[in-house]
Amino acid sequence: MNAVTGAAMDVTARTADLAEAAGNLVRLLPARLLDPVLSGLLVRADPDGVELAGTDRDRAVRLRRGATTRVAGQVLVPARPLAETLRALDSPDVRLVVEGSRLAIRTPSARFALPLLDVDTHPGVPEPPTVAGRLVGSALAAALVPVAGAASRDDTIPLFTGVRVRSEGERLVLVATDRYRMAVASLPWEPRCAGLDVLLPAALLAEVARQAAGAAEVELRCDPANPHRAALSWPGAAVGCGVLASPFPDEARYLTSTVDCEVLVAADALAAAVRRVAPYAGPFSSVRLAVGGDELRVQGSDPASGEAEETLVARVDGEPLTRVYRAQYLGEALKAFAGTTVRLGIRGAHQSTRLTAVEPAPDGVDLRYVVMPIRPR
Amino acid sequence: MNAVTGAAMDVTARTADLAEAAGNLVRLLPARLLDPVLSGLLVRADPDGVELAGTDRDRAVRLRRGATTRVAGQVLVPARPLAETLRALDSPDVRLVVEGSRLAIRTPSARFALPLLDVDTHPGVPEPPTVAGRLVGSALAAALVPVAGAASRDDTIPLFTGVRVRSEGERLVLVATDRYRMAVASLPWEPRCAGLDVLLPAALLAEVARQAAGAAEVELRCDPANPHRAALSWPGAAVGCGVLASPFPDEARYLTSTVDCEVLVAADALAAAVRRVAPYAGPFSSVRLAVGGDELRVQGSDPASGEAEETLVARVDGEPLTRVYRAQYLGEALKAFAGTTVRLGIRGAHQSTRLTAVEPAPDGVDLRYVVMPIRPR
Repeated sequence: MNAVTGAAMDVTARTADLAEAAGNLVRLLPARLLDPVLSGLLVRADPDGVELAGTDRDRAVRLRRGATTRVAGQVLVPARPLAETLRALDSPDVRLVVEGSRLAIRTPSARFALPLLDVDTHPGVPEPPTVAGRLVGSALAAALVPVAGAASRDDTIPLFTGVRVRSEGERLVLVATDRYRMAVASLPWEPRCAGLDVLLPAALLAEVARQAAGAAEVELRCDPANPHRAALSWPGAAVGCGVLASPFPDEARYLTSTVDCEVLVAADALAAAVRRVAPYAGPFSSVRLAVGGDELRVQGSDPASGEAEETLVARVDGEPLTRVYRAQYLGEALKAFAGTTVRLGIRGAHQSTRLTAVEPAPDGVDLRYVVMPIRPR
Repeated sequence: MNAVTGAAMDVTARTADLAEAAGNLVRLLPARLLDPVLSGLLVRADPDGVELAGTDRDRAVRLRRGATTRVAGQVLVPARPLAETLRALDSPDVRLVVEGSRLAIRTPSARFALPLLDVDTHPGVPEPPTVAGRLVGSALAAALVPVAGAASRDDTIPLFTGVRVRSEGERLVLVATDRYRMAVASLPWEPRCAGLDVLLPAALLAEVARQAAGAAEVELRCDPANPHRAALSWPGAAVGCGVLASPFPDEARYLTSTVDCEVLVAADALAAAVRRVAPYAGPFSSVRLAVGGDELRVQGSDPASGEAEETLVARVDGEPLTRVYRAQYLGEALKAFAGTTVRLGIRGAHQSTRLTAVEPAPDGVDLRYVVMPIRPR
């Protein structure tokens, strides 16, 4: 027993397991926290293994890994130094043991000792709510990464930093928009309750999708009777957060309207052309697409930079027309369809352009992307 | 003939060749120049191929590549946009052709057009001076990269941003110091004149070493009668610059004095231990080496971060002692000996520590590194 804090703990685990868990936990929490106690990571050893947990009072992260526990116990230590030290070790196993007022990280040739923080001042990490339904990790990642990328990074309007997560029978629909473009994906899911409709932070979801991509089963958790918190959990991990303000308006009208011209083109070839032309397209990289015949021409011009034009083979169905887009938005939309042929549905001059896949994607994911053209200069 | 500038040119080259040359040229010149005409790159096509040249009034870079010239000529165009466009192309060949007031960069499916700058306002790129001696590119790179890394990045004292280049018979000696550490390398060379001793900018030399590493023969150029400019040239390339102020004092006294204790240790293992301990070693990452028995212990401690100690097997010859070093300087010194056993020669508490290789390096390069210990806290 520790004289100062009453803490005791002695647990040995595979270094790679623990380093991965600590690194994942640090990536799921904000980098800078005003309250120093929240920069701590709770390490709990019990007969089943070791749990790392952390919170910023909104997000709640719990990651569990197998370990051999000699003395069960719980301590609070600085999260980033622990993650950094575990990542840098090259010994296969690592022992975490409380020694005096320190948590020692021991390998056969080295000892690193972190100060123990006062575990009693920590607010605790909330348990995740009940299960609302189940998903496949790879499908979640395929759908969520492009959708989260269409959300705004500007925190001043929190609404647009979220991904709307809505159940529609046996499909889960994910939508995000920053008002200039919108991404909509649906994927198969196994509902446990009806009427799920919450807005969750896009940046957190994108990191969760990356970490859960290998899991055969991911549980989405939200209590329909009290939909103020939600969580995703998969073997060894649970990540929760509060839901954002009420979801934004319906996306259906952007997806169903008729188009003036439909273009089929290789997404990667068009993305590469946009990337090459963008430096010639003025201070805002306004790239023009000119459609006609069996061609799609990508054009840019600016008095200072010069001009550029690249011609791509495309299947065009509809009247010849031109539209101007921000190169960044068009490029990010095309990236979501990398490796496939994409269908561009172009509408009136001031109406949105729709990108959809020609072939169905694996995992039953259906992705649609909407980009607003900009006024030609 | 062009109506505005009188320019004409039409040349076709391999895209990869030209993109590499333009990228290398951009890396050899400062990123930001006050005079816009110096942000231009001279493109000259002649029956032998194409030459790209640029200057910032001090540095002079000429890179030549094979090409098929239909119309010989010379133009001045913005350097970075040209390099960026060439790098992004995926067509195997590229044609540069003057069209009106533009240089068109053409592939079968695309045209990029850069504005022509006024070639008459360009100061021209000085020719390199006469040959002072010859080196092997791989040896130059092996010696110059660690030495240039020991120079200061702080432009306020230009003296310490340089590498002293001095001939000693059939060896060329390279020395750099930022006052806290010093690196000295010598390598074989074939002199064409005696008494070469110049100070050249370290950052430029490091980039030259990288680009010339594959060349069997590199010429160092400097006219002993007028040693105000120097250059390095290798097939297809010549890079010149003005010499800095007079060379700094002699390095010999740091390299020949007797040591109190000599330690043989694997450089990579020590570097890894220093990297792991450094986060525990306080705000200045002051890492302590404790030598004694057959061990080298790497220690760090700080009231806020905790403490760390790692033990390495080492061959120790001399009295037990401890010295404190900045982790960054020790780490960079050890990096220069990566993959080998390094010999640490430790002297009095306020005297420099010497790092040398135990086995001779390939290419006849002899590298010695000196690091100043710091006062223990």
